[in-house]
Parts: sequence; C-alpha cells; structure tokens
Amino acid sequence: MYGNAIAVTGGLLNNIHAKTTHGLMRGSERFNLVGVVDEKFAGADAGVIVNGTPNGIPVYGSIREFKEKSNEPAMYCILGVATKGGVIPDSLREIIREGISEGFNIVNGLHHFVSDIPELNTLASMMKVELLDIRKPRPKSEWQFWSGKIREVTTPRVAVLGTDCAVGKRTTAWLLAEDLRSRGKKAEMIYTGQTGWMMGARYGFIFDATINDFISGEIEHAIHTCFVEANPDVMLIEGQSSLRNPSGPCGAEFLISGEARYTILQHHAGREKFNGFPQIENSIPDLKDEIELIRIYGSETIAVALNTSGISIEEAGEWQRRYEDELGIPVILPMVEGVNRLTDVLIKIIG
Amino acid sequence: MYGNAIAVTGGLLNNIHAKTTHGLMRGSERFNLVGVVDEKFAGADAGVIVNGTPNGIPVYGSIREFKEKSNEPAMYCILGVATKGGVIPDSLREIIREGISEGFNIVNGLHHFVSDIPELNTLASMMKVELLDIRKPRPKSEWQFWSGKIREVTTPRVAVLGTDCAVGKRTTAWLLAEDLRSRGKKAEMIYTGQTGWMMGARYGFIFDATINDFISGEIEHAIHTCFVEANPDVMLIEGQSSLRNPSGPCGAEFLISGEARYTILQHHAGREKFNGFPQIENSIPDLKDEIELIRIYGSETIAVALNTSGISIEEAGEWQRRYEDELGIPVILPMVEGVNRLTDVLIKIIG
Repeated sequence: MYGNAIAVTGGLLNNIHAKTTHGLMRGSERFNLVGVVDEKFAGADAGVIVNGTPNGIPVYGSIREFKEKSNEPAMYCILGVATKGGVIPDSLREIIREGISEGFNIVNGLHHFVSDIPELNTLASMMKVELLDIRKPRPKSEWQFWSGKIREVTTPRVAVLGTDCAVGKRTTAWLLAEDLRSRGKKAEMIYTGQTGWMMGARYGFIFDATINDFISGEIEHAIHTCFVEANPDVMLIEGQSSLRNPSGPCGAEFLISGEARYTILQHHAGREKFNGFPQIENSIPDLKDEIELIRIYGSETIAVALNTSGISIEEAGEWQRRYEDELGIPVILPMVEGVNRLTDVLIKIIG
Repeated sequence: MYGNAIAVTGGLLNNIHAKTTHGLMRGSERFNLVGVVDEKFAGADAGVIVNGTPNGIPVYGSIREFKEKSNEPAMYCILGVATKGGVIPDSLREIIREGISEGFNIVNGLHHFVSDIPELNTLASMMKVELLDIRKPRPKSEWQFWSGKIREVTTPRVAVLGTDCAVGKRTTAWLLAEDLRSRGKKAEMIYTGQTGWMMGARYGFIFDATINDFISGEIEHAIHTCFVEANPDVMLIEGQSSLRNPSGPCGAEFLISGEARYTILQHHAGREKFNGFPQIENSIPDLKDEIELIRIYGSETIAVALNTSGISIEEAGEWQRRYEDELGIPVILPMVEGVNRLTDVLIKIIG
C-alpha cells in the first residue's frame, strides 16, 4: 500500500475518460482514494456521479479545497483522466503545479511524462515530492524477450478479453479475483494497464506503453514471475482493446505468448460500434465469430460477461438469455448479479 | 540515396542473423553496398557466401582493410547483423569505434543505440560523423494514433504476411514492387522493419521499435502519407513475424488497422517449427488454417510464396504442386522462378 490519494478528473468524472478514477473507486490495494478533485462536480459524492450509488468519497473543487476540508490527509495526487494522445494539456499542467506545490507526489499514467516538463521537475525537487510517471519504460537492460519459459508455468491462465475497449475487462477480472479469494482460492490478476497497477495488482506490465518487440516477453515474464513468487491457483490476465479493434488490435499476445488456454469474453450488450469510431459501420464483430477467432488462437471461451450500463435490468436479462441460447456457455452480468456464477465456472477448471 | 556503404557482419555473413546485409545485397535505393567486413570470410565474394552466386561485393577482414584496398570510397558503415536482445556487445563496440575513427557515419538498426554509449558519442562528435540509430523513436509529439483516415485511401493494399519470421516476406514484397514497376505500374512497399528503410522504401515505420499504443496509428499514417504523396497503383505492406508466432504475434494490425484487403502468405516449404524455438512442438500452423485466420481478419489470401532455401528444385516443385492442389490459389517460388506470376495476379487486382 502506497497510501491515501486523491484523483483529479478535470470535469470528466462521469465520463469514460475517467475510467482510471472509476477503477480506483472500486477499491485499490495500492492507493486508498479519499477524495476526487473536479470543479464541475464539487460538493457531490463521487459514487453518485459515476453510477448513482453513494460511496462516501467527496468531490472537491480544487486541491486546496481538499486540503482545507478533508480530515484524511493524502500524499498522492493521481491524474485520474485520459487525455487525447496522452498529452498533458496546459489546464492539467496547472493542476499538477498546484498538486506539487501542496506537497503531493504525482501519479501519472499518461504517455507524456510529468518529469519531462523541466519547470514541474524543478518544482518537484524543491518540494521534495516524487513524480511517478508509471508508463516510463524500465531500463532497456531489463526488457524481456519471449523465451519459451512460459512452458514451465502450470497455473491455469484465463484471459479476460473484450469485444471493444472500455467495456469492463479489468473490472470483471478484478471482481473475479476478489471473489475467488473469498472462496479460498489463490487468484492473481496479471495487470496490463496503468489502472490495474494503481489498483494494486502485483504482476504485469503496461501493454500499450511497451516497445512492441518486448510485448510477448513481458507478458511471459509477468506470468512466470507470478508463478514462481506467488504460485496462485489461477491467473486472470487483464485484456486490452479487442482482437479486431482497428485503433489497436490486441489479444493474440495473451493467448499465444501467454498461453491462456481459457478466455472470458467481455461485451457491452447492444454496442455495435467501436468506442470512439461512430463513423465505422458494423464494426463490433458477432460474438460467435469472435469466439471462433479465439479458438483459432488456441483458447476456449468459457463464459461471456456482459456490460449492461445504460440499459434496464429487463433488457440486460433479455440479452443474457439470447446469448446463452446462441452460444451455449454461461453469460453473466457482473454489475447486476455479481460474478459468483463465473467463479463457479473457474473453480471447476482449477479443480 | 545516402551513398556508398559497407556492412559489418562479425562472422555471421552466411547466417540468417545477417539478413539486414542480405537485404542490402539485393539492392537498395538508400545505400550502395560496396563491401562487407567479416573476418571469417575475408577475401571471398559476398554473394558466393550467402547464396552461391557471385555479386561482385568483396568481403574484407577489417574496416581498415576495406579503406586500403577498395577503390570505391564509402561514407556509411552499417551494422549488418542482429544480436541477442538487440544489445551492442563489446566485440561490436570495438568495430564501431574503428568505423568512427576511420570517418564513417554509423547506421545501427539494433534496439540499443550507439549514441547512448558516451565514449562512442564523444568520438563521433570529434570525428564529425553521424550516428544513425534508426530505431530511435521520433519525438512523442509526432507519434500517431489511429484516426480512421485510412478510409480515405483508395489504393489497394496487399499485406505480405508469413507463417514465421525470417521467411522472406520483405524480399518477396521488394521483388514484387520492382517487377510491378518494370511493367509500368506504380508500386510502393510500406516498410515495417529497419532493413526495408535501409533498402530505400520511402513510407513506413519500424514496427518492433514502436510503442504499442501507436502501432495502428503509424501504419495508418504511413499508408495515408504514401497515398497523398505518391499515389501509387498498389501498396505492398511488409509483414513482421507471423500471426501466431509466440515470440511476437503480429499481422492483425496490417489487416485491421491498415485495411489490407489482400494478403500474400510467405511460407518456408517444409519448415515445421518457429525459427529459434526448436523445443516447441508442432508449432507452425497449417497453411489452410492460417488462410482461414486471415479471412476472419477481413483479408483474402491471393497467393502463397514459398521460401525454398535448403531444398532442391525438385522438392520445391513438389511442395508447389501440393499446396496449389490443396489451396486452389497460385503458389510461387520467388527464388526459383521469379515473381512474375505473382505480378500477374496483382495486375488483375489493380485493374
């Protein structure tokens, strides 16, 4: 545990671009979120803004306001929102400056690094705070090539892939790991994004910040290290993007290089177009077809998890029945019924 | 054209690890190869060493020997061999030092950069020569995200994918582009590796040196720029690795993000195991199955090109007939019969 943290969301707390913050709100073993800073929603409960259910995390109008009003001191200020191209716009620079000046360590998951901005770097040295640019690559000498050592790992691996990005893959993986633990199984989530790291997953790497030649070696190394150090009953590999998302097809690495013999496929019920690309017609593939693609990559799809945000419980149930009839595998609604039924499926596999 | 160049191969001239040098020997529009430096093969003709056919490029025992004996002055010294992990071992450092001292600009396609070695950097400044670390990423501000602008490109795109790495994808693409030009068609190869760049391809990027999040945007941008600036009749996209190579599955990006609706599949006749991984049983997939995978990604496999190195012409012909019967598409042997028959197929598509 690093400690208490606040997340800044720049007017986007209720937007999918704040999914890092949403992940932290669901609980983190690395940071304890004690406040959100978002001028637009100041005074509200963050849970109410995000999904209608209070969670006791207040929203403040500024970092200064947090310091004045909160009785829970925090040491970390997390940039809790994605920006276009991962750049740090002027507005965000101003907030970071305020955070450093108020004595916070800055946690940044964007492609552009706070430590590359000389003025902020100097200010951080003066204030004796840390700039944690979590996408900063490790030294080249530590980069891993795929070696085949994955073949030594006997732990079953389950990839949580999606039919699109921002569809709930990490959330399903995380809930499932927690539920497995509550039922006496040792489960580890292999993180592949910055939010997974922020939430406290111990093994993994940041997929989209890695030099492509080392992706397969990094996934192999994360799985192998987890096996050697933690030796869990099962590993859940957080997927990224989707196998056929044109803005970044991804997934074969987990199935082929990470040898995940099982897949849980996350899908947003009713979503037809890839997130962010409304101009591309008929874009999200049919589930049946996606499951066939996953099969060709050597992995069996053991269940579908449906994201049901934006639709009624009745509609969600209809999608669930329709897909179960069509696919003949369990289809679960994590946000409606929890992941318990999925845990049952996994426990059978673990044995 | 940058100018005359020598390639150093450190005892590996006849090895697949020197494939950068082999590519340059086949002709480059960027560098004119006037000599190879390889102590082990000093005095020989480089063509004889590589494929038994003289090409008039002499092999020298050292850079100094090249300078003393050659009457073709060269300005560029290309590190023409891959090393484990892309590192620069001490032996290579010594050769680079000699190259710089003799006044050569250094061209380096390895993951580790010559300019990161302070001693060599200082020496290069003193000698006023350039260190071209061609895998060095461009400034972050120039990195491209996928935007969908690929939809504006009307030029047909043909991906040259392989069933393995080091199987001849780039060579087939390059020969095909040359043959198309000789028959009056404007063809461009989109390079995705450092050798393609060294050979003179004008549009592309170095796939495996790119931060993963930008791969799809870079391929889109290269194709779009080629369309806007050169407007060829066809683009041939150089593939990397293979769709199911565990050490780095790759290819979906070209089909999905680059929207290559056609694929030429390169295969080493008779090769069963992935290059470098003899311990992994049954590893290279069946061609029929690979073509089905390519189809799921939205691309039609229009021909197979066979690498026939290491087998007799008779055997090559047998493989060719066997695959043509099985697959029902043209199967060509570029190194035996040239690519003319493949050019015919493409000219039909271009119209």
